[in-house]
Amino acid sequence: MRLRNKPWAKTLIEDNSQYILVDPLKISGKWETRFEKNQPIQLEVGSGKGQFIVKMAQKYPNINFIAMEVQEAAIALILKKQLDLKLPNLQLLLANGRNLNEYFAKNEIDKLYLNFSDPWPKTRHEKRRLTYKTFLSQYKEVVRDNGFLQFKTDNQGLFEYSLTSLNGFGMNFDKISLDLHNNDELMEDNVETEYEQKFTKKGQRIYYLNAQFN
Amino acid sequence: MRLRNKPWAKTLIEDNSQYILVDPLKISGKWETRFEKNQPIQLEVGSGKGQFIVKMAQKYPNINFIAMEVQEAAIALILKKQLDLKLPNLQLLLANGRNLNEYFAKNEIDKLYLNFSDPWPKTRHEKRRLTYKTFLSQYKEVVRDNGFLQFKTDNQGLFEYSLTSLNGFGMNFDKISLDLHNNDELMEDNVETEYEQKFTKKGQRIYYLNAQFN
Repeated sequence: MRLRNKPWAKTLIEDNSQYILVDPLKISGKWETRFEKNQPIQLEVGSGKGQFIVKMAQKYPNINFIAMEVQEAAIALILKKQLDLKLPNLQLLLANGRNLNEYFAKNEIDKLYLNFSDPWPKTRHEKRRLTYKTFLSQYKEVVRDNGFLQFKTDNQGLFEYSLTSLNGFGMNFDKISLDLHNNDELMEDNVETEYEQKFTKKGQRIYYLNAQFN
Repeated sequence: MRLRNKPWAKTLIEDNSQYILVDPLKISGKWETRFEKNQPIQLEVGSGKGQFIVKMAQKYPNINFIAMEVQEAAIALILKKQLDLKLPNLQLLLANGRNLNEYFAKNEIDKLYLNFSDPWPKTRHEKRRLTYKTFLSQYKEVVRDNGFLQFKTDNQGLFEYSLTSLNGFGMNFDKISLDLHNNDELMEDNVETEYEQKFTKKGQRIYYLNAQFN
């Protein structure tokens, strides 16, 4: 979902470069210098307003998290939360998911999250879906060997597509749920996104896949 | 579903060996001799009362079909239909799916169907599920290279399991639907089973997977 432009966003981002980078070209391979502790780094591509990544960073202090988001108006809202919380294990990245290997070195990422990505339902837009093979290739480059990709969506078509695409890319399926919120085992560790809360209240199913690069 | 025993079944089967074989040990590699025409052979493992396989045989005269079923009372009902219809491209096999490679030669099968197989929901019964890896190994032996396995079920747990199991076995997913009866493209060619009709009327989703051996 595209957010309305926020006139204050640009200045806020410029003033807080300790928490947020904008299209940085020299950070690849040096992300650990941005965090207080040297520990595994997990990346969310498309963080939206950031409920998921902020809660994850609070819940898992022994993991470093990066919120990547292309919309200035959205990541500015995450930054606002981070200015309150000052979580030492959360960094923000305003950049496009298409250029992932400009921003990260090989194996720099421990795990990657895709939450409620744009479904791009038209066949001619297949290449824009974040589970299209060219994106998977980029993820594979920056995620460590045997690292995981965790994917959640409410969109049936995108989930069907992603199962086929990840299978075709040779990824190993670790866990699948076709109705996450009725899966007790997975719900124990589930951290909800804003969308997820909204859709679940409407009684819609959430699809979940955890898959491994090899 | 286990059917009530039918006292007339055994005699009917014995009297009609032109249409049905019972645990045959010398037919492997010679199935084409059982059909009028030499054409691709497709196999359904667990045909139940046979609505699917009989309709398929009627719809596709240029394919030979084998209905495999372990329950005498069920396959006797398919035999009754076949005695009415006398389809030259339909053969019945009363036997257990566990011993598939005793009954079929390598590459003898063009495509294999699993429809609404027993879900065996308990973890300790995993090995009995017809998409467990030992079954997949057997299918792979008898199905030609790049041949397909088509799978339908209403059981969410079995579908989740099967996606993971087939992916782990290295099969290539060709098509997936998480709601077959709302997929116009797939419904054009869909042939319903008895169960499928019943479950669909109750508004339950049907899950569909077509995957390729390699």
